[in-house]
Amino acid sequence: MPYINIKITDEQVTKEQKARLIKGATQLLVDVLNKNPATTIVVIDEVNTDNWGVGGQVVTDLRKQNT
Amino acid sequence: MPYINIKITDEQVTKEQKARLIKGATQLLVDVLNKNPATTIVVIDEVNTDNWGVGGQVVTDLRKQNT
Amino acid sequence: MPYINIKITDEQVTKEQKARLIKGATQLLVDVLNKNPATTIVVIDEVNTDNWGVGGQVVTDLRKQNT
Amino acid sequence: MPYINIKITDEQVTKEQKARLIKGATQLLVDVLNKNPATTIVVIDEVNTDNWGVGGQVVTDLRKQNT
Amino acid sequence: MPYINIKITDEQVTKEQKARLIKGATQLLVDVLNKNPATTIVVIDEVNTDNWGVGGQVVTDLRKQNT
Amino acid sequence: MPYINIKITDEQVTKEQKARLIKGATQLLVDVLNKNPATTIVVIDEVNTDNWGVGGQVVTDLRKQNT
Repeated sequence: MPYINIKITDEQVTKEQKARLIKGATQLLVDVLNKNPATTIVVIDEVNTDNWGVGGQVVTDLRKQNT
Repeated sequence: MPYINIKITDEQVTKEQKARLIKGATQLLVDVLNKNPATTIVVIDEVNTDNWGVGGQVVTDLRKQNT
Repeated sequence: MPYINIKITDEQVTKEQKARLIKGATQLLVDVLNKNPATTIVVIDEVNTDNWGVGGQVVTDLRKQNT
Repeated sequence: MPYINIKITDEQVTKEQKARLIKGATQLLVDVLNKNPATTIVVIDEVNTDNWGVGGQVVTDLRKQNT
Repeated sequence: MPYINIKITDEQVTKEQKARLIKGATQLLVDVLNKNPATTIVVIDEVNTDNWGVGGQVVTDLRKQNT
Repeated sequence: MPYINIKITDEQVTKEQKARLIKGATQLLVDVLNKNPATTIVVIDEVNTDNWGVGGQVVTDLRKQNT
């Protein structure tokens, strides 16, 4: 019955990577808390880098500085 | 003043259906808790089926298995 | 599979009222979108009035002004 | 380490405005609680007006009534 | 920079189990997406069983039926 | 109509500090996007340090290491 929400920046995450996140997060709740995977929900939010800030700066700008 | 967030998979939900969800959720808070509808907010998130997992599986894959 | 989150102020909501919110929200998704209730999750967050603001004011203070 | 989520309707918010929201929200946590900005995260969600309701009505419809 | 929110029912989860959830979720984002763990945030919400519904029923009641 | 959620660790935040967060966040949305403060909602979640992780570590443990 757990609900897990993963928020990441929208930077070319593949369908296969999303499948691994969903599988891994569900398994984590089984391993640690013995939760029933059948009713465990995982939702991945991909957020535009213009809409994500860290350290008061927009991630889009941080990415440019690092290249 | 309540805030209601409805997360569903992004599968051709119509504007009319969204209007019914918004109206119905707002009315529910009026009926049960006598909340003021004027400041009740409803936000609907439509999530790509690639980004939604249940039972450790991606919904996109589950949909294929069911057809 | 929908996930519904209802945030309300923590003001003596009874267990019976919570049950009605859970039942009503689940039924709404059945009625409007034909969702499977068995995997529909509803989570109610009761928030201290000190921690809720509207119009830039703390709800605790708004409640006092209204009495 | 704070996490701040700002949900607004998707109505032509510019990258510059988003940068101001991110900077301002991060600074607010510094000013009030002396939080470390380096690990403060701000996420802005822009929500389609079809998916946002207030007063039981869809914002898309409210916007039309106001013009 | 990812943000992970894990919502579970409040049923005697130990501090050690929470530590494992935090460690495991952070590692998952490293393994799958090569994210920097230093700025990865995990927040666990423990929700009263009166406030959690599945299948339209309150979890508190479901637990009683199962004993 | 914006909705702002501020998540911080539960470490003796005063009612006065919460009022400043609510006022400041509401004003930020007025200043940057000219939003109507009357329907702007701010919700502050105070999270137990046992339930908050950064860098894969529980904040409770990080606090001990820093003293």
